Amino acid sequence: MNSAFARIEHLVGLNKILLIFALFIPAAIILELTHANPIWILLASAAAIIPLAAMIGEGTEALAEKVGQRAGGLLNATLGNAAELIIAIVALQKGLIDLVLASITGSILGNLLLILGLSLLVGGLRHGLQRFNSENAGLDATLLVLAVFTLAIPSFFNQALEPDFQRVEFVSIGAAIAILVMYGLVILHSFTSKPAEGDPQAREAHAPTGWSTPHALIVLVVAVGFIALLSEFLVGAVEPVTQSLGLSEFFLGIILIPLVGNAAEHFVAVQVAAKNKMDLALSIAIGSSLQIALFVAPLLVFISLAMGNPMPLEFTSYEILAVSAASLIAALVSLDGRSNWLEGAMLLVLYVILAVAFFFF
Amino acid sequence: MNSAFARIEHLVGLNKILLIFALFIPAAIILELTHANPIWILLASAAAIIPLAAMIGEGTEALAEKVGQRAGGLLNATLGNAAELIIAIVALQKGLIDLVLASITGSILGNLLLILGLSLLVGGLRHGLQRFNSENAGLDATLLVLAVFTLAIPSFFNQALEPDFQRVEFVSIGAAIAILVMYGLVILHSFTSKPAEGDPQAREAHAPTGWSTPHALIVLVVAVGFIALLSEFLVGAVEPVTQSLGLSEFFLGIILIPLVGNAAEHFVAVQVAAKNKMDLALSIAIGSSLQIALFVAPLLVFISLAMGNPMPLEFTSYEILAVSAASLIAALVSLDGRSNWLEGAMLLVLYVILAVAFFFF
Amino acid sequence: MNSAFARIEHLVGLNKILLIFALFIPAAIILELTHANPIWILLASAAAIIPLAAMIGEGTEALAEKVGQRAGGLLNATLGNAAELIIAIVALQKGLIDLVLASITGSILGNLLLILGLSLLVGGLRHGLQRFNSENAGLDATLLVLAVFTLAIPSFFNQALEPDFQRVEFVSIGAAIAILVMYGLVILHSFTSKPAEGDPQAREAHAPTGWSTPHALIVLVVAVGFIALLSEFLVGAVEPVTQSLGLSEFFLGIILIPLVGNAAEHFVAVQVAAKNKMDLALSIAIGSSLQIALFVAPLLVFISLAMGNPMPLEFTSYEILAVSAASLIAALVSLDGRSNWLEGAMLLVLYVILAVAFFFF
Repeated sequence: MNSAFARIEHLVGLNKILLIFALFIPAAIILELTHANPIWILLASAAAIIPLAAMIGEGTEALAEKVGQRAGGLLNATLGNAAELIIAIVALQKGLIDLVLASITGSILGNLLLILGLSLLVGGLRHGLQRFNSENAGLDATLLVLAVFTLAIPSFFNQALEPDFQRVEFVSIGAAIAILVMYGLVILHSFTSKPAEGDPQAREAHAPTGWSTPHALIVLVVAVGFIALLSEFLVGAVEPVTQSLGLSEFFLGIILIPLVGNAAEHFVAVQVAAKNKMDLALSIAIGSSLQIALFVAPLLVFISLAMGNPMPLEFTSYEILAVSAASLIAALVSLDGRSNWLEGAMLLVLYVILAVAFFFF
Repeated sequence: MNSAFARIEHLVGLNKILLIFALFIPAAIILELTHANPIWILLASAAAIIPLAAMIGEGTEALAEKVGQRAGGLLNATLGNAAELIIAIVALQKGLIDLVLASITGSILGNLLLILGLSLLVGGLRHGLQRFNSENAGLDATLLVLAVFTLAIPSFFNQALEPDFQRVEFVSIGAAIAILVMYGLVILHSFTSKPAEGDPQAREAHAPTGWSTPHALIVLVVAVGFIALLSEFLVGAVEPVTQSLGLSEFFLGIILIPLVGNAAEHFVAVQVAAKNKMDLALSIAIGSSLQIALFVAPLLVFISLAMGNPMPLEFTSYEILAVSAASLIAALVSLDGRSNWLEGAMLLVLYVILAVAFFFF
Repeated sequence: MNSAFARIEHLVGLNKILLIFALFIPAAIILELTHANPIWILLASAAAIIPLAAMIGEGTEALAEKVGQRAGGLLNATLGNAAELIIAIVALQKGLIDLVLASITGSILGNLLLILGLSLLVGGLRHGLQRFNSENAGLDATLLVLAVFTLAIPSFFNQALEPDFQRVEFVSIGAAIAILVMYGLVILHSFTSKPAEGDPQAREAHAPTGWSTPHALIVLVVAVGFIALLSEFLVGAVEPVTQSLGLSEFFLGIILIPLVGNAAEHFVAVQVAAKNKMDLALSIAIGSSLQIALFVAPLLVFISLAMGNPMPLEFTSYEILAVSAASLIAALVSLDGRSNWLEGAMLLVLYVILAVAFFFF
């Protein structure tokens, strides 16, 4: 039994917890086919996407090992957010622009408050006062504040002018190009800079799967296919659920979608924090936020444009305030070079307060 | 004569300067009974509360020594803001909600600009460039920015929705509960964490009074009683003074009340800065701000509710901007690990500018 | 030929690049006299002011060496912004208040994003990861955030009240006085503090010109005279250019004027960064911003008042947001004690995005 499990674990690259989550895949399909209550369809397909997102991570990692460091880094940077992108594309197809915009800020908030908070809490409870290299973390934090401010510029700009959809789109596209230039520079920098002191930790984060290239490709194709299917179920259930439960599209976008897209990745951050590798935990939480702000957000502008249903980069002032505050707080946490469980617990309480506040919007 | 003075000093736990301030107690009572000009009543009762607040501090300290470290810490954390709480309760009874709200942000501003500024100025003039443990201060500063942002959430939220008193109250109560959970975590952390390197300094801050438990209890009861009486005078004079001088309730709340409630405590911060104990001075200024944001503010929400005159946590955007800027600046001062008199003088000029600006509101 | 060049270089204190720019002086005069297209007059006189501003810097430096350290420091602090002040005074004479206000925030943004960005980029490309004394930079950054916040207070204040020109002026004058007090404290501090560790670098920034006092005075008088003349051309061309090109006065003020006034000074910052003297590069970029916020801005309030055309310290919220974000980002860059080319490139992209956004206002 154990060895059969181990073989499946190896085959799909999931540990036991994630394998249990994989049971939600058939469950979601059955619920959809039997036209069950949309709430159950929403929750089951959300849960089912979690292990599939993890499979994409493993498959990408395995491919990256084969193609050399640079192309591998690029692969990781591009495919790392595949699950979030697929959900967003399906939502854009159905015209749920508010859901997609909210999921962008929600992902950043989730990384900086929920994941960083959990990492500091778990790490601090296990190891007391934890120290990390504040200089490495400081560079990342500076980039994060820069990226968040840049992402916010079109929203300020659009608030200043009379509502004019063409101009708003024009500004969004301009900003998206500039932000992608920034992302290109970040990728270029990661290729050219000598490995930092934190890197030995980074290598430990992922045990090699030992997959062959075809194995990795099959895993990727299967995972992407299932995510696309389950995203249809998930997004299709959004409208009936918002109507029957009185929840807003905004709330589902800012809380639920980010949890689903990032769950597996975040599990790693908390795990390494528990092993007292705070440099790595901080770099995952802040690095994921950077990828959302600098890659996912501008890419979705162009994808929405190509789909003929353009999405402007226009966030509410409450989203901008929350994301700015979260990135400043993450920067302060990074800069002092020390963390304890209290900081983690405070970040989590802040996340809960924001979630409750967003619930009422 | 000197020994008589020393005996009185021991009896009530006040030094010579504070004993002189104690002369304002009979003065305030006489002015109130003779129906003097409300301005004199306001100033005299404000001055009279200063030594009484110091007596509460001494009495709490003496009790805390008797009951063991943990219960003592809790006592200090709870009774440390007794003077401010009593004034606020009297003001709530008279329906002066704006005064109470302003006194919350005014206390935080006073701690972060006036007290920190004076400490850095006095310390810097005496000792030149002063160094301190930026890691300890960094943890406190991160908590401060977190606390201030959390305190601001209900105000943002209430601005976003149409004015609906029931909903505003509901959000304020929810936020108050969450903030008290944060405060509980901070207290829990202070109990469980090993004493930090700064602690030997902390022990030096208070010379033991050597009071017996009954002595301490009598001092506390007498001080609380007099503060309650003088708060009646003080708050009763607010309305006539605002009308005759054209001052706003808001100005008195944001500048005068915080000066009175915190004066004695602040005296200690400046004193230890003069002795080059900057870690302790910073921790008093930031720690007091944390107590206002995480304990006094949410507690007043519940007290006002119990009194049947609910106070929402709704600050003006100018208060929120000022408090956010002050907490960020305090965080920057803390994080660089060095201070000089210039930083202190700049904080003081900023406090004066803000006070002048608030004067005109 | 070479020695003739060297003699001219010595005579006017300009290197070859700046000598080439000096050719724009006759060009601008000819274009103005021939009533050429205002766009060419604007660009030529802008380019012509660059070497003249550098000559003021050299002349001031030479005088400062003669008069002793303290008076010299004061001279540098006062005359360092002569070019910007002259342009601003000419613009105030013509009633272009929006241009002058925009040039204040534009100068701060130019220093913190363009100059700091170029310095970090050039330094980082040449030397990889660069380290600097984060404590020195931290003090400067704290002062910067303080100064920017103080400068923003009158704008917030004026937004809060009904538009009433007299009151707005009154608040602006009050704030200007307080800000000049801050500047006086900064100057006083620079006189009284022992030289910091960064100072040996500072001495290397300027090779002595070896000018006699009369030589220096003549250079100064000639440069000031030409700048005044060319500012007339420049400012005279603003209105026709804004009308024919559809550019706003605001855009010219926030982007073009600051480039002209600070070009020479900024060249030095990038040069020292290329020599791996990041402490000095940071201190030039942040120090210049401090001088604009604490000296140029309040001085222009009084000059405009004396000219009978009072300029209120009233910035748009977009300017305040951009300057606040830039100063926070500069503070974060300073506090982590390390920089690389990526941080520099990101600051430059942010500057470009802001410039494009301001273009559309």
